Amino acid sequence: MIQKYPSGLLESAVDELSRLPGIGRKTALRLALHLLKRTPGEVESFGNAIIALRQGINYCGVCHNISDEAVCHICSDSSRDTSLVCVVENIKEVMAIENTGQFHGLYHVLGGIISPMDGIGPGDLQIDSLVQRISKGDVKEIILALSATMEGDMTNFYIYRKLSDAKVKVSIIARGVSVGDEIEYADEITLGRSIVNRIDFNDTIKL
Amino acid sequence: MIQKYPSGLLESAVDELSRLPGIGRKTALRLALHLLKRTPGEVESFGNAIIALRQGINYCGVCHNISDEAVCHICSDSSRDTSLVCVVENIKEVMAIENTGQFHGLYHVLGGIISPMDGIGPGDLQIDSLVQRISKGDVKEIILALSATMEGDMTNFYIYRKLSDAKVKVSIIARGVSVGDEIEYADEITLGRSIVNRIDFNDTIKL
Repeated sequence: MIQKYPSGLLESAVDELSRLPGIGRKTALRLALHLLKRTPGEVESFGNAIIALRQGINYCGVCHNISDEAVCHICSDSSRDTSLVCVVENIKEVMAIENTGQFHGLYHVLGGIISPMDGIGPGDLQIDSLVQRISKGDVKEIILALSATMEGDMTNFYIYRKLSDAKVKVSIIARGVSVGDEIEYADEITLGRSIVNRIDFNDTIKL
Repeated sequence: MIQKYPSGLLESAVDELSRLPGIGRKTALRLALHLLKRTPGEVESFGNAIIALRQGINYCGVCHNISDEAVCHICSDSSRDTSLVCVVENIKEVMAIENTGQFHGLYHVLGGIISPMDGIGPGDLQIDSLVQRISKGDVKEIILALSATMEGDMTNFYIYRKLSDAKVKVSIIARGVSVGDEIEYADEITLGRSIVNRIDFNDTIKL
């Protein structure tokens, strides 16, 4: 259906909004009309916050997480265990793991995973800087916490190979049936992995 | 769950994005991370399109539709029937009716409907300008095309009363069972209205 917009300004705003992931032209029009009901000052601060985000964003020089300072608040926190580094794909995973309150080490944000289909190779990710970081010798263990997909497995294996000469323990997060999930609804691969990777019941009592 | 953002810039962008209707903090973060993957130039043109929309927007002096010119392209189209005016709530309805290709008159955009619950009274809407427009005598018929809600009915009645002295025919769009809908699934009120407002079958043949 061809939609004729009565204004060029409206059309370009709808064009831009509909380029966001998961937002179609109908939603974009709704958002644009909503913005028209706000004050010019509010809309200006909205637009400027977006522009400032992209222009002013910095990455931590150590872990490559998004940060306003040269070293992020996690890397500069002296109470954290610097011998343990969790390798994640993106900042969203850092936030998710931080929210568990179960991890007190540092992170290393790759900025993606190896995906030949999307043209993302090891060179596009922060893998070299991870190897360099490990080579300094302070890190005793790295935990791979990437997605359980083919791309994630590929990236895990690539990093594992790259670190084969380094004196560092490489762990991977446990896969298994989710806490609270019923066994009969778990998928077969997850259930299989949770049986293969079964743990001593004595260990669970200590948790 | 308290989410600690690693950057103030990211947090304010997420704050602003999550103020949009239908966008929560999780989606806002996803959108912000998406914007970080675009070039600074692209993000700047996105932000500026939004700011320009609010600052530069104009409304047609005749029908109050959004327009870049003083008189919109519908009002200035000499091929349209200037004796027929369709009263709508917002620009979205103008676009929907235009897309039907069945209406060749002009519009009058109220900018909302009377809604005491939301603090919107007749003074907040373009009703006085409608009465003024009708008083010039060129318009022979107005068609009320507002939502079939209590607020819509209230607004219809208010406009009808306001125009009681004017020499203008006031029509209202037909309510009835949607084309293609099965009768058994139509709601009772709609079905009732479509029976009360039944039309001569001879008239349908002409359509």
